[in-house]
Parts: sequence; structure tokens; C-alpha cells
Amino acid sequence: MDPSTSGLAKKLAEADQSHLLQFWNELNPTEQADLIHDLQGMDFQEINGFFKSAMEMSSSSKHEKMDARMEPVPREVLGSVTRDRDCLKDWELTGLHSISQSKVAVLLLAGGQGTRLGVSYPKGMYDVGLPSHKTLFQIQAERILKLQQLAEQKHKIKCCIPWYIMTSGRTMESTKEFFSKHNHFGLGKDNVVFFQQGMLPAMDYKGKIILESKGKLSMAPDGNGGLYRALGNQGILDDMERRGVEFIHVYCVDNILVKVADPAFVGFCVQKGADCGAKVVEKTNPTEAVGVVCKVDGRYQVVEYSEITLATAEKRSADGRLMFNAGNVANHFFSFSFLRDIVQKYEPQLQHHVAQKKIPHVDGEGQLIKPDKPNGIKMEKFVFDIFQFAKTFVVYEVLREDEFSPLKNADSQDGKDTPTTARHSLMSLHHRWVLNAGGHFIDENGRRVPAIPRDGAAGITDDGNRNLKDGTDLPIKCEISPLVSYGGEGLEELVKGREFHPTLMIDESGVHELVKNGV
Amino acid sequence: MDPSTSGLAKKLAEADQSHLLQFWNELNPTEQADLIHDLQGMDFQEINGFFKSAMEMSSSSKHEKMDARMEPVPREVLGSVTRDRDCLKDWELTGLHSISQSKVAVLLLAGGQGTRLGVSYPKGMYDVGLPSHKTLFQIQAERILKLQQLAEQKHKIKCCIPWYIMTSGRTMESTKEFFSKHNHFGLGKDNVVFFQQGMLPAMDYKGKIILESKGKLSMAPDGNGGLYRALGNQGILDDMERRGVEFIHVYCVDNILVKVADPAFVGFCVQKGADCGAKVVEKTNPTEAVGVVCKVDGRYQVVEYSEITLATAEKRSADGRLMFNAGNVANHFFSFSFLRDIVQKYEPQLQHHVAQKKIPHVDGEGQLIKPDKPNGIKMEKFVFDIFQFAKTFVVYEVLREDEFSPLKNADSQDGKDTPTTARHSLMSLHHRWVLNAGGHFIDENGRRVPAIPRDGAAGITDDGNRNLKDGTDLPIKCEISPLVSYGGEGLEELVKGREFHPTLMIDESGVHELVKNGV
Repeated sequence: MDPSTSGLAKKLAEADQSHLLQFWNELNPTEQADLIHDLQGMDFQEINGFFKSAMEMSSSSKHEKMDARMEPVPREVLGSVTRDRDCLKDWELTGLHSISQSKVAVLLLAGGQGTRLGVSYPKGMYDVGLPSHKTLFQIQAERILKLQQLAEQKHKIKCCIPWYIMTSGRTMESTKEFFSKHNHFGLGKDNVVFFQQGMLPAMDYKGKIILESKGKLSMAPDGNGGLYRALGNQGILDDMERRGVEFIHVYCVDNILVKVADPAFVGFCVQKGADCGAKVVEKTNPTEAVGVVCKVDGRYQVVEYSEITLATAEKRSADGRLMFNAGNVANHFFSFSFLRDIVQKYEPQLQHHVAQKKIPHVDGEGQLIKPDKPNGIKMEKFVFDIFQFAKTFVVYEVLREDEFSPLKNADSQDGKDTPTTARHSLMSLHHRWVLNAGGHFIDENGRRVPAIPRDGAAGITDDGNRNLKDGTDLPIKCEISPLVSYGGEGLEELVKGREFHPTLMIDESGVHELVKNGV
Repeated sequence: MDPSTSGLAKKLAEADQSHLLQFWNELNPTEQADLIHDLQGMDFQEINGFFKSAMEMSSSSKHEKMDARMEPVPREVLGSVTRDRDCLKDWELTGLHSISQSKVAVLLLAGGQGTRLGVSYPKGMYDVGLPSHKTLFQIQAERILKLQQLAEQKHKIKCCIPWYIMTSGRTMESTKEFFSKHNHFGLGKDNVVFFQQGMLPAMDYKGKIILESKGKLSMAPDGNGGLYRALGNQGILDDMERRGVEFIHVYCVDNILVKVADPAFVGFCVQKGADCGAKVVEKTNPTEAVGVVCKVDGRYQVVEYSEITLATAEKRSADGRLMFNAGNVANHFFSFSFLRDIVQKYEPQLQHHVAQKKIPHVDGEGQLIKPDKPNGIKMEKFVFDIFQFAKTFVVYEVLREDEFSPLKNADSQDGKDTPTTARHSLMSLHHRWVLNAGGHFIDENGRRVPAIPRDGAAGITDDGNRNLKDGTDLPIKCEISPLVSYGGEGLEELVKGREFHPTLMIDESGVHELVKNGV
């Protein structure tokens, strides 16, 4: 077919995107068909509108303004695992009860590809090199399974935590295949629901859609905030309603420590009657590159580190903590009714954020250009953009070393957020579980290893102390299957009073001491 | 001469160290003379006594015991730059006044060699690769100079901060040479006083002194706590008394951020009437490998991370902070009278700590052995061992990002405490000084760089925020000479309202923007 007769050319002309057809005559029939197919699926007026408002928003947001409008999270809406220890057990019971009633669902944001990680498959399929070689998906699946068991044991009633997994056009097929290949890790096919976030074209600064080749538009997922549109147009809300889901835990696939459907977090939010809650970790260094949850003009939102001045980042409360220290870790609680209102009423009001990117494209002669500085934008919505609509918003502060260690970069890059750091934070957590359950570790000479190994954590080492400074201490390798313990519970009978040579592995089949393998 | 006739053999036999002469007949005259010289300088009975009590102490110290006896630092003896902001200016004035009276001296612990750093010369001579290529010694010297100027300007009176530098047998000569080659960085030869800490032999687990070659004992410095003995037997105390020194700031050479003779710290200690004070940084992660200042059986000391159980390390106060969070950074205040009492009364009571080491040695056949696991011990005293004798002990908490970044490892090793981290923490501090003085940085496209660059600090990055995630932001390189600003003061007139392309350098000759150089 010929686009000129199809009305498509007219549609493009009206949207000032006719350049998308500039190489039409150089395309073979298949390429032409694909291009037509892509173009017909798009609403150019809407896309142009997105571009216009996104650019306006990004240019209008001035730092100075933002600082003056920011207020910290008030203590009364904050729950803290370090400052509210007495409440933890009670929150957890409430959460477990909701879970036992099958009122809690888990929603996983897994649309991203492991580009920075250096792999072409979905991040959730990554094996960080644990003794068990479990993938992120499997670890999270087993935590859900274990949590179901705990709730069932406690309340003597069968229950289910449905798992909604948002993929993108690029990750849908491989993700589905992976799950069915692994028999959905025992969760049951029906209780793992896949859906797909939308895609948007990359555009140059003038608003022209960018061609990545003569016959192909440069497309990218519409950000983790694409969630809300997808929830509606793919029937996920209806599915939740059908199942009687009342509370949803939303998180990102890349956090190896994530407490999926964390009963204490859920219970805290439920007890507070919150429609929206954010799990945060304390930001302790003013220049740490993390967005902070705070109030702006009286409404909650995440202010990104790039949006505030150093003076504001360095502000401190009377207790000496940073005033804006609620570090956002993309880990949220939503009530179903809130989510429904968002999807049905507020989503269209959410504007796209502008991400300046170096976008490969073809020039007027059809030559492929790989720019070395940003030449255009991708448009994204963020999952936390909806905080502003919450009527009862709460914040739940947890310990970074217990709950947050994202996998972002390949090991070859700087040491931050790599497979190694992810692996180490999980094994360090499990090491601490064993010690707190009364177990001990011994080195090859049979000497007990100190609770805090020299390289136990990034940080200063006491100059006085040289006793551990010549590598005689060994890093503890310890992995505990989520099917054995969700959060450190139930380990006493397995480890109390016992001494172990690392590598220690505890799984359903028992306690194993493996021969050392390089980690 | 022949040791048998010299009484030396007898002395060795009595001390059960006769094996030190086992290769006597294989040595040439020079080697024999050297060995005789070394042996005659040693008090073997005393060394055996050190060994006995050190081994007893190390075996008797049980973790369980320690935990029960620990108490945190009470708030009333704590000064905090984050919690006592209103007092800072006043403390600083008091400190500056003492400095103007020439009552404040600085004592540098520089006996160590850059072994882990991979260099054979003293750490203080290391150039971490700043734009100026200043060494640690020069940076510290210039801070002293600047502080003298500030005190003189404020009080219209000439003053001097004498600098006592403790080296070891291995570093004395090269350190002295380096300082005279650089004309003592303008401090005046008389105001830089070098002295030398003692050496002790390495011993095997049976108490035999280890031979590193047929004619040479394996010797090592006696720990930074060797300071106290050296202060006495090398006339340093007398020199201090002669100069009328009343307060001494003691620190370690490897901290590139060290606020030498920090007026606020000194002033705080003076106002509190303290005879001993410890500057600390908050320990925020239970498994961080740092010793903590606390009370044990009612007396202050540093408990090393290897000495406590995880349960104790994880204890928290009502405010959510770790209960034992006063992280020791080898940065102390002493009154002269306290130091004198230590040297004259208490030093002999201090016992050596045992550091298990892999010590190269010759076996019975004279073959050189390089052990792969610890085969003996070095005996060391620690500078903080004297806290227990303080009558009025105080703790001063500062921000790690502003004041502590030690240089310990070569860049080739793990990313901790390397030349790169040291360089970055200094430039990040100076970057913040410029921003807080009203200056701005712009990138090569003339866009203002956000106050918090993506790689501004190790830490989490907000998953929502992709605006800074494609390398369009640049790391700010900024160095300000201590001769221009000691602690960020006096920069407004130079930078306020101005925009700079990094690399920015500010020194006595003015403000310079350098072409980018890889840092």
C-alpha cells in the first residue's frame, strides 16, 4: 500500500511528522509494511501534546523555586523500623492477616532491560552468582511462596498473593518463557499475571520523532509510571477487583533484598488507613544521589537530587539528621481504590518527564549517526508521580543494609550496584541472620570469625586495629533459601549453638557446608 | 668480637633467645658487627615481659564479656557539629584564641610506611593526584600556616602552632629530607620537630624473636601508641613545656581531610575542661569495620569492631541511631598535663596488643620462608589506649564527608580508601565550599551542573530519575589551596555569583579554570 492514499501521509503532515516517510521509496515491501504498521498504531496528536507539555514542565522547573516550597515528612506519618521497634510485631501481624485473606497483591516493575548491566535479557533473569545461582525472579518468587505459607500457618486458611509483572515490548516474551520454563516457581500459572507498559517515540528538541533507521522509529518504554495506563488498558485493575485485592505492594525488579509484600510495611499502611505509602531508606550524606520523599506546597512527592540546591540538601533537623532524608527506593504501597482512582481519573493529568539522551538516528542522507552528546529526549512518567493525589500518605523507613541493594551496573564498571555488591549484601544479610539465631562461623583454622569481618561493609577501619588487617579473616559466604526463612525467622533450630565453615547454604533439604568457591 | 666473650651470648641464653646467633659463623664481619649492634641495643627481659603480658591479654579478652560491660557515650560529654550547631562559632572562637596564644600544638603520627599503598616512602609524601599535585604533608602544613594567619588576624598577635612529627626508624631520614627540601613549607625549621617511635622485634607464638635473615632480626614499629614512650625519651615533652604548649591535637597522616588543630574541636575540649577528647564520625551501619568510643566498666576506651558481637553492634537508642556509634578515626585532643602524666606515670601500664602477621623468616637451615598464614606476632600499643586514664573525657562528633577520608590502599585494590577516593573526597568538599559561597559550575554546553552530581557520592540513585543517567553530567573537579581557605571561609568575594568551568583551582595567585584533566 502507499501511505499517500492511506490517509497516513495526511495524518503525518497534520502532525508535522512527514519526515518519517522521507526514505519510503528506499524501503523494501516488508520494511514498508512494518513502518506502516508502526505508524498506524500511533496517535501523533497525543504524542505532540505529550512533547509540548513535557518540555514546558522541564523548562519551568527551577531549582530555587523548589527549595523554598519543600517541607520534610512530619513524624506522625512516619513509621520507622529503628524508632518504632515496639510496633513492628503488631504491624507484621496486621499485614500477615491481610495476606491470609488474599487481600494483598504484589506488582513488579520489570519493564527495563539490563542495558547498563550489559545483558540483553530482562534483569529479573540475571544470576548474580549466589551459591544457589538463583535469579532475581526466583528469589522474589520464593519469598512470595514463603509468605503465603507463613500466613496460612498462622491463620489456618489457604491464601494467595497474586503477582502482577509489568514488562515492556522488549521483555514480555522472554519473561513469559522464563517463567513457564520454571513452572512459575510453584506459584501457579494463574497467580502470575503479565502485562505490558506502553512505548513512546524518542523525539528531537524540535519535537520531530527520531528515526533509528530509514524504516524504523526510535521507540522506548514510557517509564515505570507507564504502569497506570497499562493497569487500565490491559484489564489488570479488573483482575485485581475480581480477586478481591485491596492492597498492592509495588517494587522494582533490581533490588535483591526486596521484602516482597513486606507484612510489616503493609500492616503499617493498613493500620494508618493509608491509600499510598512509600518505603524509604535514610539519606545520610547530603550529596548522595537519591530522590527524597517530602511535601511540596503541602502535597507529597519525590524531589529528585538534581532538583535541589546543596543548601537544602545539607539542611538538618534538631536531631542532627538531614531534614530531607527520606530516600526513595521505588518501593510503594497502594490501596486498590486509590489505584483505581488514579487509573480512571488522574493518570491523564500526569505529565511526562524529559530525559535527555544520546539517541542514534539516521540523518537526511540516511547515514546512521551515533551522537556523543544528547540530541533528543525520551518521555517518561514515574511511578511516584501519583503521590500528590493521595489523601492519606505515609512513609515507612527501613534499614538500607537489610532491604535495599539494587543491581544496575556490570562488574566491570565502578563498584556501585553491581552483581558483586548485590551478592555480598544478600549474603551479609543471611550471615547476620545466622549470628542472630545463635550460630557461629569458623575459619579454616577452626577459629571463630569475628561477627564484623574487616570487609564486612564499606566504611572506615580503625587505625588502631591492625589485628584483622592482613587478610587472615575470610569473607563469610552464606545463603539461606527464602523457602526456609522470609526475614530471618525460624533459623534457631537449624543453627543455634552450631559452628559452620563457610560457604554455608540452608535450603529446604537442610544445612549444607560447601567447599569454598570464589565469591 | 665474639658474642660468647661479650656477655651477649649469656644475656641471650638467659632470655631464651640464643637462636638469634645460630648462623653467627656464616655471617661476614660486617653482618656480625651489625647483628651485635642490634642485639646490644635490646632489653630482652623487657621484650619477653611484653610478649608474656600481650599474649595473656589477647587470650583473656572474650567477646561475650566485653559486650555486657559496654556503655554508650553519654550525651553530656558529646559535642556534635550536627546537633550543637549553635555552639560551633563559640567553640571555634575559643580554639582560635588558644591558638593565638601559641598554646596549641599539633602532633602527627607518621611512623607507618605506605606498604598497603604500595610505596616504600612515607605516606605523607604521597601525591594523590590533585590538580596541584600537593602531597599530604604539604596540605597539612598549609592548613597549619593558614590557621596561624587566621588567629593572628583575629587577635593581632604573632603566634605559632608547633608541629611534632613522629616517624619511625624506617621513615625518619626520608621525612626529614623531604621537609628540608621543601623548606618546611614555610613553617620554619624550628617549628617542625621530628622524633622517632620505638621498634620491637616480631616473635613467634612461643616467644622466640624471628630472624628475617641469618644476621637480621625482624623488627617493626611499636604501634602508634609508641608515641608516649617516645615523647618522654626524646625530650618532646620538655620541648612542649618550653614552648608553653597547653593543648595538643594528635592525628594520623593518612586522612586527607584532617582539620589540623581544628579550632572548633580544640575550643570544645577547652570549654569542657577536658584532659582528653576524641573526634569521631557516626557509625551508621552495624557491620562497619570501625572501632567505637564507649565506656567499659565506667572508663572510656575504643572497642574494636572485632571485639563485639553483632547483637551489640546492632543495638539502637530510642532515637534510632546505633547505640555504639562513636566511630574512632584516630583524631584526638590531649591537655599537656594529661600527656605528661601519661608519659611519666601510666605509659608502663599500657600493654601491647597482639597483631597476628605473616612474617617472612629463615628456618633452621637458613632458608627464607614466606608463610601463607600467620606464623607470629607483632606487638603494638595504640594511641587511644590512654583514654582510660582521662579524668574529663569528651567526644566530638563530626561529619565523615567533611573530615575523614583516609588513604590506605593502592588504586589497584578494592575501591576503599584509595588515592582516588581521597582525591575525590577533597575535591567534593571544595566543590561544596564553592556552592555554599554562591558560586556555580557549568558544563561544556554552558549548562549549570546540578549541586548533586549523579556520582556525587556512593549511594542509591532514584530509579525514577533518569535525567542524569546518561553521562551528560560531569564530575566537578575543584581544588582550593589551604592558604586561601582553611574550612570554607573567605570564598564569597572570590566566587559569589560566578560561573566556573571545572577544573577550578583557587590558590594564593587567584582563581584559575584549567583545561580538563582526567581525574
